[in-house]
Amino acid sequence: MTISDLLFGKPLRSSEEAGEKLGAVGGLSVFGLDALSSAAYGPEAALTLMIPLAAAGIAYIVPITTCIVILLAIVYFSYRQTIEAYPSGGGSYTVARENLGTFAGLLAAAALMIDYILTAAVGISAGVGALVSAVPSLEPHTLMICLLILVIITLVNLRGVRETGAVFILPTYAFIGTLLFTILLGMVKMLATGGHPVPVVAPPVLPLTAAVAGPWLLLKAFSSGCTAMTGVEAVSNGVQAFREPVVKSAQRALTAIIAILIVMLVGIAYLVSSYKIGATNPGQAGYQSVLSLLTLAVIGPGAFYYFTMGSVLLVLALSANTAFADFPRLCRAVAEDRFLPHGFVTRGRRLVYTQGIGVLALLCGALLILFGGVTDRLIPLYAVGAFLAFTLSQAGMVAHWIRKGGKGSHRSIFVNGLGAFATATTVLVVAVAKFVEGAWMTVLLIPTLMLVMVAVRRHYRQVEEEIAQDPPLDLSNLQRPMVVVPILFWNRVTQKALRIALAMSSDVEVVHVACDKDADNVHETWNRYVPAPTNPADRPTPRLVVLPSPYRFVITPIVEYILDLEHRHPDRQVAVLIPELVENHWYHYVLHNQRAELLRARLLAKGSQKMILVSVPWHLTV
Amino acid sequence: MTISDLLFGKPLRSSEEAGEKLGAVGGLSVFGLDALSSAAYGPEAALTLMIPLAAAGIAYIVPITTCIVILLAIVYFSYRQTIEAYPSGGGSYTVARENLGTFAGLLAAAALMIDYILTAAVGISAGVGALVSAVPSLEPHTLMICLLILVIITLVNLRGVRETGAVFILPTYAFIGTLLFTILLGMVKMLATGGHPVPVVAPPVLPLTAAVAGPWLLLKAFSSGCTAMTGVEAVSNGVQAFREPVVKSAQRALTAIIAILIVMLVGIAYLVSSYKIGATNPGQAGYQSVLSLLTLAVIGPGAFYYFTMGSVLLVLALSANTAFADFPRLCRAVAEDRFLPHGFVTRGRRLVYTQGIGVLALLCGALLILFGGVTDRLIPLYAVGAFLAFTLSQAGMVAHWIRKGGKGSHRSIFVNGLGAFATATTVLVVAVAKFVEGAWMTVLLIPTLMLVMVAVRRHYRQVEEEIAQDPPLDLSNLQRPMVVVPILFWNRVTQKALRIALAMSSDVEVVHVACDKDADNVHETWNRYVPAPTNPADRPTPRLVVLPSPYRFVITPIVEYILDLEHRHPDRQVAVLIPELVENHWYHYVLHNQRAELLRARLLAKGSQKMILVSVPWHLTV
Repeated sequence: MTISDLLFGKPLRSSEEAGEKLGAVGGLSVFGLDALSSAAYGPEAALTLMIPLAAAGIAYIVPITTCIVILLAIVYFSYRQTIEAYPSGGGSYTVARENLGTFAGLLAAAALMIDYILTAAVGISAGVGALVSAVPSLEPHTLMICLLILVIITLVNLRGVRETGAVFILPTYAFIGTLLFTILLGMVKMLATGGHPVPVVAPPVLPLTAAVAGPWLLLKAFSSGCTAMTGVEAVSNGVQAFREPVVKSAQRALTAIIAILIVMLVGIAYLVSSYKIGATNPGQAGYQSVLSLLTLAVIGPGAFYYFTMGSVLLVLALSANTAFADFPRLCRAVAEDRFLPHGFVTRGRRLVYTQGIGVLALLCGALLILFGGVTDRLIPLYAVGAFLAFTLSQAGMVAHWIRKGGKGSHRSIFVNGLGAFATATTVLVVAVAKFVEGAWMTVLLIPTLMLVMVAVRRHYRQVEEEIAQDPPLDLSNLQRPMVVVPILFWNRVTQKALRIALAMSSDVEVVHVACDKDADNVHETWNRYVPAPTNPADRPTPRLVVLPSPYRFVITPIVEYILDLEHRHPDRQVAVLIPELVENHWYHYVLHNQRAELLRARLLAKGSQKMILVSVPWHLTV
Repeated sequence: MTISDLLFGKPLRSSEEAGEKLGAVGGLSVFGLDALSSAAYGPEAALTLMIPLAAAGIAYIVPITTCIVILLAIVYFSYRQTIEAYPSGGGSYTVARENLGTFAGLLAAAALMIDYILTAAVGISAGVGALVSAVPSLEPHTLMICLLILVIITLVNLRGVRETGAVFILPTYAFIGTLLFTILLGMVKMLATGGHPVPVVAPPVLPLTAAVAGPWLLLKAFSSGCTAMTGVEAVSNGVQAFREPVVKSAQRALTAIIAILIVMLVGIAYLVSSYKIGATNPGQAGYQSVLSLLTLAVIGPGAFYYFTMGSVLLVLALSANTAFADFPRLCRAVAEDRFLPHGFVTRGRRLVYTQGIGVLALLCGALLILFGGVTDRLIPLYAVGAFLAFTLSQAGMVAHWIRKGGKGSHRSIFVNGLGAFATATTVLVVAVAKFVEGAWMTVLLIPTLMLVMVAVRRHYRQVEEEIAQDPPLDLSNLQRPMVVVPILFWNRVTQKALRIALAMSSDVEVVHVACDKDADNVHETWNRYVPAPTNPADRPTPRLVVLPSPYRFVITPIVEYILDLEHRHPDRQVAVLIPELVENHWYHYVLHNQRAELLRARLLAKGSQKMILVSVPWHLTV
């Protein structure tokens, strides 16, 4: 078993693909983590904006959550239809590009890529942030813990989809179980006390005020709360990862995710307002998350509280995994249309898109390092990307149904149209409300990324045109090349190279660089080792060329001579034969100069189409 | 002007060598810095050991210094003879190897290498340490300042010997001038007051004791004081860097260095004992260097004091330069005997031994980083190496004179013999006195380094035997190779490669890896593009080989196929033709896979002597 087998698992045959598929249960944890974990920060984000209103602010959480849940329901029905219409994977990119054209597709792709990268970084740092606020002694190691989690998530994803599902099932269901239990118990207590439950541990008392929220504050609170919806598109993007029947499995997973998310959001909103729990200021002494206050109020301190908080931390950190599941698939789809490098299309040893996972890990790691593992300020950035992608996807579906027409198309148009309208409105609201806080960066990054993708496609097109070939193999005028052999000393390696050169062509030049005044010496040695043939026409004889080098450079004179030779014989192929010692042990590397490799690199960079480079390796046995 | 011209200067022709030579003035600063700067720490090192004796200890400084000066004089006469006998550079390595054999030579070389590396690191960190104790706010940047100085010294040395001399002349002479002036003024004051001068600023009063130093303490003080002698061998090592007449120039530089050093040592000892200046504990509050106390006592605070201290700091830091002047020359001499990699023999663009400078800079930088720029603990280590080299060099000279015989040889034998005896005694004293403090590391490192050198030589010998060639070029049985062309698609690149292949040989195989079930497709395309010839004997036709790849690996199946082919045809050369796209812009690198280079690397590592690798580049114009 090799190290790579241990880390990444044994390679999988292409035919083993079916075994790597997900059911609804595994799919929920692979594609649902992002959406579900947002229940942990969405309501809190909305409540935080209400802090200035004190007790009066809490009254707004139920109506705001109601709006979000309605939007969520609309989006749910839209994506159900998308999954059915695109069983081979209907990510926003695919749907927008097929129905609205390249521009819309690239817009969606760019928005989603940025969204995924941010999701991954923010998820990890949010989880670690929560952990650090629980165990303050870990604070100096924030960045290291972030990167450790990143490495673990990356490795698990490189092992393949099924193993990823297996690893993440436990934390996902622990999170769902504890949170639903808390909500249920809270509801029971609320009903039993006629709506006025007594908290086990009382949350901080909020001063009573008669403040009223203005429309701008409400819009901002709604925008912040909308972060609870990010990650919902994941399932539609990854339909192909589900087991047969793929559409049913994927729809079932989507239904489960949305249903659980709605129950959580509604439950949290009701309990928060009846227990009168307000958000506390993050970054200030005495800060506690809303979920922590809620669990303490309903259940009180103890083992269950810690278990709940532990699963919240874990799920937040692992929510980054949704990005790891979807980003590579998105890149694959874009690269198949040649807007990104080929490499994203290649499936690695475990049937996953290795390069996509690698690129995401690198970018996410760079973000974490850049922000020292504290990425709170990035949160406002990513709602824009997510909702832009939602909108384009829904709008694309509307165009799809219009073109398809037929029975029931009106109903479909209405559902997706409503989704498009609702999410488009949300994009505008979020972009405006969050512009100053950082949404402008997204607004700037998206067109940049689109330009890059267009440039990549243009490059591939040009290369394709340049090397495209229609006529069959032309075997006329095959001419043997001129051969140039640079040599330093006369030994077996040179002997081998010269024999190969003379077998290739009768037109062989041997080039020697004379650093000192040893030119005479060279000619003498040459005449001794390469005797003039008795009949020149009978046998090919190599010619000796001695190049002077007053500056003791060895490679430059050879390169210049060969380029000049090419220039003098524009109609001939020039083959440069480079004798090369190959070390038997890596630690012998420093003992031999790397001139052969340097010469090759220089000639490769400077030569024309008429030059070919022949390495004649001599494998040392010592 | 390119960046390298700016940093390292324009390349020098081999014939410009004479212009790069040093006179006695420049030679003093290039080769004398190490020896002279040791006046700044040698006396202090001896006095530090006398701290426990308080006032009584000061009495011993004059006799100890007298011993050191006598030793220095003996060594001086010895090295004068060495320079005369070895005008082409008589480093300890050369002298010991020629006269005492390989073992002694390698022992001297290893000892000196370690000595030079330590000198460079300790010099820089001592200078920076003094600077930091003068300006405590720089303390957090100690390591950065050390590395900055290292970079500057390295760059200056890479620019060539003469420019180095020019840069270092000013600080060297400022140091010599200020220190000699202080000593002179102190002597005048001492004579004027009948031996009881009144200090301008009184040094800390030492308690009067009746303590007597035991022999062990005196030995240790002598050993510590001997660090004042390190660097004396530098001139004899670098004779070739001097201007004609080389022997006279070098001897003049050596005489000047030793004379100045003796005056400094004697002057410091007398002044210290008449002003009653004792060492203070380094690393404790109120620490001041002996030179600082002395200057304050003789001249008092003011501009001259700061100028003196500044030149001391600078010269300490720059004393590392002696190592940079000699280490590369030593490595060159050792590498010419093939005990070190060839690279050390090559002179770079500015006629200096670039690789030696580079290796020293790297090792010195590593030491500085490892010790965080504070290398006090390394000081005891390097006297052993220096004195071991002295001893071997002197002993070698004795053997040299015995073999040579003739007029005046008895006098020469006596001078060098006395030197050998005195320094050998010192090695023993230093090694014993400093063993626990770190000399054991040197004692361990030296044989390790010797083993490495012997192994390098053995490797070169074996390679030479393996590739050595006597008989002239054999042109019989020239056979054209079998050619294998791995292809992915059918395009102009493939067309070009196939044409070259068929020009090289009529025995051509095209290898295609079928990742998916496209094997049928391949055959169809093939038949379309490579039509069967009407008369197979008339024209060569390539054969198609389709390799299955259930795990989607592309390179592995090709490598395995070619290795198998080699195995099946042990009597044939196998040429692998690798078509390769060459990007026109570096940023296109990521857009094309690097399979061609990977395949080449794998084949180069695994192939046998019968395989040659042909790169067929296609230079993209886009």
